[in-house]
Amino acid sequence: MTSPEPPRSPEQRLRDTLDRLRDDEDAWVATASSDGTPCLVPLSFVWHGDVLVMATRRTNPTAVNVTPTGAVRLTLGPTRDVVLIEEEAEIVEGTDLPTATGDAFAAKLTWDPRKDPRWVYLRITPYTVRAWREVNELAARDLMLSGTWLVRPSPATSATSATDRSSLPS
Amino acid sequence: MTSPEPPRSPEQRLRDTLDRLRDDEDAWVATASSDGTPCLVPLSFVWHGDVLVMATRRTNPTAVNVTPTGAVRLTLGPTRDVVLIEEEAEIVEGTDLPTATGDAFAAKLTWDPRKDPRWVYLRITPYTVRAWREVNELAARDLMLSGTWLVRPSPATSATSATDRSSLPS
Repeated sequence: MTSPEPPRSPEQRLRDTLDRLRDDEDAWVATASSDGTPCLVPLSFVWHGDVLVMATRRTNPTAVNVTPTGAVRLTLGPTRDVVLIEEEAEIVEGTDLPTATGDAFAAKLTWDPRKDPRWVYLRITPYTVRAWREVNELAARDLMLSGTWLVRPSPATSATSATDRSSLPS
Repeated sequence: MTSPEPPRSPEQRLRDTLDRLRDDEDAWVATASSDGTPCLVPLSFVWHGDVLVMATRRTNPTAVNVTPTGAVRLTLGPTRDVVLIEEEAEIVEGTDLPTATGDAFAAKLTWDPRKDPRWVYLRITPYTVRAWREVNELAARDLMLSGTWLVRPSPATSATSATDRSSLPS
């Protein structure tokens, strides 16, 4: 193993995380059945209006698992550049999706299943966002807790609900 | 999106998968609590004797979730170069780990928690292994089913229980 880079500032981690939310195509999506069987699949997404939007076949385990509790764990990036998100997901029929959201999905992913009844959308609202690369970034890895950004974004970032940096937990 | 590469042969996918099992440091590990809450974490691993071996704190959700059913889903590689593994995991105390396995873990990860009672090992036996990059590789993505490799390895690979390629499902 090589020595890791110095830890990034919380502000830099927020910028990097928002870049990934905007630019990455796919995320790893973990759900659990009601009897405790895990499911883990890659799904394409768009980040639009502070939620992640994905599509999956309505019969797939991911869609089935989400229905009772909405519990989802999701990661972007490789294991040494982690963005780990805990969130609540809800199923939205394509015909019920806001037009702007459906358009944003179609534009990013060049695919528009709104009118295909085999597919449903997952509307995923993060409540915890953590970002770290190596062990030296495990401290201060929390960027969002209880649905509130803890890091003040710079003007170059687009987070809309940031609170004061001083609320970061020690 | 750019056009994908032509699909790899099953033999190439097996070689690439075994390379990842040998060389990658971490995997995404998904488990589920008995009441249906997913957990997703990155864990370092060693591939030794046809099992994956990892270590986690015994109080972490991953170790707690594994105990009742052993159900684990695990991925190596990014979302466009997927190795997706379904497996059964068992908890092994460091003091009960075979010496060769513990030595292999310590040598690869430069870390040896065998005598630290805060840590336990996960001994993970794959029964399904799938590998694909893009949509054009979704066909023939199964490399192992029911614990049996479906692809005949070339002499350069190290799979030890391969069966005839002709048993690949259509």
